[in-house]
Amino acid sequence: MQTYNAPLRDMKFVLNELHDFSKLTSIPAFSGVDADLVETVLEEAAKFTTRVLLPLNPVGDTEGCRLENGVVHTPTGFKEAYKQFCDGGWSSVSAPPEYGGQGLPESVGMLISEMICSTNLSFGLYPGLTAGAMTALRKYGSDELKSFYLPKMIDGTWSASMCLTEAQCGTDLGLVRTKAVPQGDDSYAVTGSKIFISAGEHDLTENIIHLVLARLPDAPEGIKGISLFLVPKFLPNEDGSLGARNPVVCTALEHKMGIKGSATCQISFDEAKGWLVGAPHKGMQAMFAMMNAERLGVGIQGLGITEVSYQSAVSYAKERLQGRALSGPKYPKLAADPIIVHPDVRRMLMTMRVNAEGCRALGTWVANALDIAEHTEDKAQRRDAEDFVALLTPVVKAMFTDMGSESANLAVQTYGGHGYIHDHGVEQFARDARITMIYEGTNGVQALDLVGRKLPAHMGRSLRGLFHPIADFVAEHKEHPLFSKMIEGLERALGALQLSTAHVAQKGMADPEEAGAAATDYLRLMGLVSLAYLWARTVTIAVSKLGAAEGPDKAFYTAKLSSARFFYDRILPESAALYLKIKSGKKSLMELPEDLF
Amino acid sequence: MQTYNAPLRDMKFVLNELHDFSKLTSIPAFSGVDADLVETVLEEAAKFTTRVLLPLNPVGDTEGCRLENGVVHTPTGFKEAYKQFCDGGWSSVSAPPEYGGQGLPESVGMLISEMICSTNLSFGLYPGLTAGAMTALRKYGSDELKSFYLPKMIDGTWSASMCLTEAQCGTDLGLVRTKAVPQGDDSYAVTGSKIFISAGEHDLTENIIHLVLARLPDAPEGIKGISLFLVPKFLPNEDGSLGARNPVVCTALEHKMGIKGSATCQISFDEAKGWLVGAPHKGMQAMFAMMNAERLGVGIQGLGITEVSYQSAVSYAKERLQGRALSGPKYPKLAADPIIVHPDVRRMLMTMRVNAEGCRALGTWVANALDIAEHTEDKAQRRDAEDFVALLTPVVKAMFTDMGSESANLAVQTYGGHGYIHDHGVEQFARDARITMIYEGTNGVQALDLVGRKLPAHMGRSLRGLFHPIADFVAEHKEHPLFSKMIEGLERALGALQLSTAHVAQKGMADPEEAGAAATDYLRLMGLVSLAYLWARTVTIAVSKLGAAEGPDKAFYTAKLSSARFFYDRILPESAALYLKIKSGKKSLMELPEDLF
Repeated sequence: MQTYNAPLRDMKFVLNELHDFSKLTSIPAFSGVDADLVETVLEEAAKFTTRVLLPLNPVGDTEGCRLENGVVHTPTGFKEAYKQFCDGGWSSVSAPPEYGGQGLPESVGMLISEMICSTNLSFGLYPGLTAGAMTALRKYGSDELKSFYLPKMIDGTWSASMCLTEAQCGTDLGLVRTKAVPQGDDSYAVTGSKIFISAGEHDLTENIIHLVLARLPDAPEGIKGISLFLVPKFLPNEDGSLGARNPVVCTALEHKMGIKGSATCQISFDEAKGWLVGAPHKGMQAMFAMMNAERLGVGIQGLGITEVSYQSAVSYAKERLQGRALSGPKYPKLAADPIIVHPDVRRMLMTMRVNAEGCRALGTWVANALDIAEHTEDKAQRRDAEDFVALLTPVVKAMFTDMGSESANLAVQTYGGHGYIHDHGVEQFARDARITMIYEGTNGVQALDLVGRKLPAHMGRSLRGLFHPIADFVAEHKEHPLFSKMIEGLERALGALQLSTAHVAQKGMADPEEAGAAATDYLRLMGLVSLAYLWARTVTIAVSKLGAAEGPDKAFYTAKLSSARFFYDRILPESAALYLKIKSGKKSLMELPEDLF
Repeated sequence: MQTYNAPLRDMKFVLNELHDFSKLTSIPAFSGVDADLVETVLEEAAKFTTRVLLPLNPVGDTEGCRLENGVVHTPTGFKEAYKQFCDGGWSSVSAPPEYGGQGLPESVGMLISEMICSTNLSFGLYPGLTAGAMTALRKYGSDELKSFYLPKMIDGTWSASMCLTEAQCGTDLGLVRTKAVPQGDDSYAVTGSKIFISAGEHDLTENIIHLVLARLPDAPEGIKGISLFLVPKFLPNEDGSLGARNPVVCTALEHKMGIKGSATCQISFDEAKGWLVGAPHKGMQAMFAMMNAERLGVGIQGLGITEVSYQSAVSYAKERLQGRALSGPKYPKLAADPIIVHPDVRRMLMTMRVNAEGCRALGTWVANALDIAEHTEDKAQRRDAEDFVALLTPVVKAMFTDMGSESANLAVQTYGGHGYIHDHGVEQFARDARITMIYEGTNGVQALDLVGRKLPAHMGRSLRGLFHPIADFVAEHKEHPLFSKMIEGLERALGALQLSTAHVAQKGMADPEEAGAAATDYLRLMGLVSLAYLWARTVTIAVSKLGAAEGPDKAFYTAKLSSARFFYDRILPESAALYLKIKSGKKSLMELPEDLF
């Protein structure tokens, strides 16, 4: 069974104890926000997602979407749920107040997103795409476009899609063929075909605002000739009411492995009216603005799937009676022991648990930095925060989704044969999770982004924002009798990461294929070291609080120590293998001639 | 696109060059078999599987099976393909000649199975289940049952199913509730409900022979009270024609994540007439006979999926144009380079390739031992071979299927968004492969079987059959200037395995949970060391042959060197992490109290 209770206690922990939420609330933009308000918001989000979205998750998977006469019908209940979503204010949580948003930090928005992704990833894609499009529009749209479109996107009346991919291009958007021809006024006629468009057409909102990559007639070839256009499904009148239908048509729905409740559309533009967003030929810039927001968002999808996989597996492992504990019957009165008594089942459960807790801790760290980057008035602080977000974005996207897919598959494995059967709903997690490793840039592309763009940027400046706090922490706690063994492990992993960084920088400078050959393993190593640091900090916090803690708090901190131990014993050792793989270089990947494959 | 060309050259290599096929043909049972005959058989199997089974693979996935009025309809084309399968003699390849089989070695049968699983895993399950049931019947059935049933199972006229699992029990068959009541003659009335029964009902054969686990009225509780029964769908007359319909009914088809062309049935027995196979209450013995054969078979399914995933990904990576090589355009005349130029894409392709080649080498080694165990007249040789098969069976089952699932997912990843779409057929591989890690004993159960049963058996005698050849090989090649670095890697990995073995043996003796905590990582480590040994041997063979080799042979051996390098550079390093995880013991798995999960 798909089982979910929002992990509110852990969310409070990462916001307030592991990271310093008060640092955020000292920023004027968040002056009205405090921990109590956030707690209330999260509790309400927990209720909404668990009561409304979770029951619709298997419905969406079983029914899928239907295309009839150009109209896409979402699964039963999605439309009503979307209305409740908007009425409850969930579409506007961290949107800017000047356009009607509630202006809560992204750190809070991220945790709400996590709940949405745990309970109904397919549903979450509809508002998720709108949020990504809003980022691009806010950063690059004209004031006119912003003041006209953003309020209705923020209150959820209108939704958005991102129309990038075409049949011949996904990763390489320089190959985009869609055309935009100026119409003499400030508008353009957009013509072309797009595929894989999430939320490209549906029945949840009265209008859909497409952000479309296309080429102007005078565009240079390749990636430097791409511009971004806003193309509404219905052309709005000046008062915001809907005017003529723009020739933007859903020609087909993709048949996918999962996220079946999400409408993934082929969209055809036939001289559709649109407006330029940002400067001509600078569409990739705007695209990356929304893409980066989306990449963090996709990482959080991985976290959401991890959490619900964990909880669903735990509930089964406690119920399913099969065999006896290796150490002798634990429940002699039952026909058999529940399978949670088995070390190998616990290995799977702990992996999911520690994946979820670790990703939540790291995701919140990055979301905090994002809030600082967007709202602080301190320039140096902003620069550091921007660096940090840029560096960690590919790590969050790729590692979290790898772990999401791993966790969903571990949930299936915990259920055994019953996990392979549709009825229990866990195989849906595995199918849904699978796309997160692919869209918004495959995880391989994330790794290339990390080693090719993020590492060399500003002469490695951003790395210091990650390495320094870890090195400082190591120095501070190295001699502590309680922590020394753990710190040793952290120091070793950090050392491996630093050596790997030097390898990538040196070898990669002379031969970019060397950087490419290291990329995926390097990204994972950076992710593991970041997690190791956060787990070490978690341990010091838990130890300091355990003395005075009672009841559920005591249990919480005790469990944190076990999670941390598991991470250090069973997950961090991977870093030894990663380092060896990175060091081995490109030869074994590149030497086989193409025709011998 | 699902792409497949049977890897005949590599099959010849593992049979004749890596392993010594002539050692098999010196056994009287195989006196009529030679390398030329085998080559012809494999070529014919390649034609049949590629031409007949491969095109039906997506058909089975899309259509699935239908249950109407108790009749299960297999997908379009399966019935005709099954007829061709039998007419071509593919059902009887390695079946015993005394019952009409062709008596070819299992080593050959395994390679044919690999082709079947590459081209159509769902189809392969129908004859696959028959083969497993025949093993049990041959070993434990009375002469009367054998001479009556085996010939028709071998020629494919009748098929079989294995009815073990019930809703409340899968891993723990001691919980079986199905009953068998003696009828005064030599028959029994079998009553109960079974689930997850592959090929339990279908329209491919005129009769289905169910092997059913059930309890006799006087059965002791638990696993020691289980007996095995043969229950035909139609009660045959003495002349083999079909008589009365036995009350064995398919009540539902399971809705599964994959293998949709395979009918997975819920089967209800209502006082169905059956006959005892083997001694009363000794059903588990017979069950394990078929289970062990099935476990090797499932491992080969993993290999089959790995190979077809690799080939399908390669064909896409050579075609799909996206971006440019990091070292500068490789195909400047094309709009972009094919993605195979990218190191990270090659990392995925090489992983699949090396998984396939390695598993084929190891699978053939085990199949050779199986042939020796079954047919040699030399007692000591037989004992050693039996030991070896018993030890490696869980490794083959679990590691091959882990690699199959990994490879299928890498194929999806290579395709990017197109991999997530049904039309290309690679997401089917990922869904199909997922069950192989679960059925016939989850991979966690395999690992427990290895550390709990196989390691301690005969005081560790069987380990010597694996460790000694590796240690001898290391000693022999250690000083060789060409191989010393590779041998160092092999020696280090073997050392890690030996230390891990000591850990499991010592800690596990005092506390079986310690063995359980190490099990999965230990199994993987043993698998990797076995592969490392076979890759090292492959290198020595390739080097010795390269001097005189020309044309395709030269390319073949050159590619082998690249594959081996990839294994040592990029896969074997995992063993370092595995050793650390194993050594960390059970604490981090077991300390968290059940109620804190």
